[in-house]
Amino acid sequence: MNPPTVRNPDFEVVVRDSFDRQGLMAHLGARLGRVEPGQVEIEVAFREELTQQQGRFHGGVTTTIADSACGYSALTLMAADSEVLTVEFKINLFAPAQGDRLVARGRVVRSGRTLSVCQADVYAVAHDRETPCATMIATMMRTVTSQLPAAR
Amino acid sequence: MNPPTVRNPDFEVVVRDSFDRQGLMAHLGARLGRVEPGQVEIEVAFREELTQQQGRFHGGVTTTIADSACGYSALTLMAADSEVLTVEFKINLFAPAQGDRLVARGRVVRSGRTLSVCQADVYAVAHDRETPCATMIATMMRTVTSQLPAAR
Amino acid sequence: MNPPTVRNPDFEVVVRDSFDRQGLMAHLGARLGRVEPGQVEIEVAFREELTQQQGRFHGGVTTTIADSACGYSALTLMAADSEVLTVEFKINLFAPAQGDRLVARGRVVRSGRTLSVCQADVYAVAHDRETPCATMIATMMRTVTSQLPAAR
Amino acid sequence: MNPPTVRNPDFEVVVRDSFDRQGLMAHLGARLGRVEPGQVEIEVAFREELTQQQGRFHGGVTTTIADSACGYSALTLMAADSEVLTVEFKINLFAPAQGDRLVARGRVVRSGRTLSVCQADVYAVAHDRETPCATMIATMMRTVTSQLPAAR
Repeated sequence: MNPPTVRNPDFEVVVRDSFDRQGLMAHLGARLGRVEPGQVEIEVAFREELTQQQGRFHGGVTTTIADSACGYSALTLMAADSEVLTVEFKINLFAPAQGDRLVARGRVVRSGRTLSVCQADVYAVAHDRETPCATMIATMMRTVTSQLPAAR
Repeated sequence: MNPPTVRNPDFEVVVRDSFDRQGLMAHLGARLGRVEPGQVEIEVAFREELTQQQGRFHGGVTTTIADSACGYSALTLMAADSEVLTVEFKINLFAPAQGDRLVARGRVVRSGRTLSVCQADVYAVAHDRETPCATMIATMMRTVTSQLPAAR
Repeated sequence: MNPPTVRNPDFEVVVRDSFDRQGLMAHLGARLGRVEPGQVEIEVAFREELTQQQGRFHGGVTTTIADSACGYSALTLMAADSEVLTVEFKINLFAPAQGDRLVARGRVVRSGRTLSVCQADVYAVAHDRETPCATMIATMMRTVTSQLPAAR
Repeated sequence: MNPPTVRNPDFEVVVRDSFDRQGLMAHLGARLGRVEPGQVEIEVAFREELTQQQGRFHGGVTTTIADSACGYSALTLMAADSEVLTVEFKINLFAPAQGDRLVARGRVVRSGRTLSVCQADVYAVAHDRETPCATMIATMMRTVTSQLPAAR
């Protein structure tokens, strides 16, 4: 996407504030990295509490940080008083999520009036070497703060 | 799927044992329910630690239990010494995941030699009333225990 | 979905009229079958013009009739003056699409204000025996006739 | 993907030969463009026979060329005597597919032993100006020629 339009100059505050209200992010030990127009990075360090049955990162962790990286990258381009909801996503987990940490990099592919299409790539990092392990495409929906619909 | 073929009579032990080795399931407080040929149920009770920014269940939780319900429903139909890996999935989150608990019901749509297609429906339960909130289609892959590939 | 709400009593006329304006449906030889509240059936007979490299139905044909069956099942539940657009879909092609004809059965999983979630199952029919060969989950969007947005 | 490994030096012949056996490609008027290691381009010119109800390219056309572009990009990296089957894909159609022609550019994201993950971007071209209109992520499976499985 060539120069994304920023509608809310305070987008970074909005994103960081929303992230801090996600109980799950704290529970997983996820950390918000770079927050730029149309791009957000989230990472999480390895812990036993995040594993699947073979001791690697569980696909649910990979997916959770990818989902949030997509959602928040969409939110960076929304007007003030916007909230973002995940409509749907699809993820391919194509290599073992094994290492010291996982990092998800989300970006906006298409920012529409109501719907945004985002993509996230997830990397397993071991000894500072990144190995791509998953890719996600997501559809995000803008809603207006305190007017959240019961349904979409 | 009409009468699924059970290749390992000990499938329930295999599934429960694998579930118990998933650090993430314990960390989320998820519990394995019914384990039947081609069908598995997983549920998780509400806690602040599982929320998104509006205080509902985070989509990552919904997705994690749906993913595991799909994977384990596939595993119920696999031969002994099989492991299951998630190749990919897609989930639509179509209503707020709000309530006392979430329950994911996975089932096998198609059990193939290497790949299985599974579906999971997720319900938000409040005061014992279930409201559907998400649906997932997943592709699962069989691998042989202790011969896990570096890649798929 | 228990008793879907019909907002336009003329839904069948709307769907059949829209189908008839799809040049691709005629070009593929696809035919609209049952049109009921929240459910639509589309089928297509085998021809050399619809094949992939091994002489079976091309996945693009399977997908096209599944997409339209999803979209039109959503349209059956929309108010008058609505158009339906495909936001996205995911399809698993899990068995060869081989036979005299293909039939796609779409249904609405969730009908929302703006977005609907639909599912379609596709069957290959040979000698009147149906074999499931694919399943799709799709997100459909309602727009108002002659107010079609440049973007979504 | 950095320098993809070519296992069959005749990959271009294999891809072009397979494409020519797809009845649907001829029926849609699709044309195979560039065929490079891990990358394939397919385009199709506008015709009334390819439309949806508003006179634009039908999503089924967009999807069909994206699917084939993904599958053939995977095939460019496979050993001799390989065939490629689509396991599943997901596509987001985020802008009107309107113009003189559509072009789908597929590329391999991950080439595995059995499964490959591919992505395709589709552009609507009007007066030689390209507008992105869709993106697909697909899982492709390698099978050995004349040993095609009845199921996957």
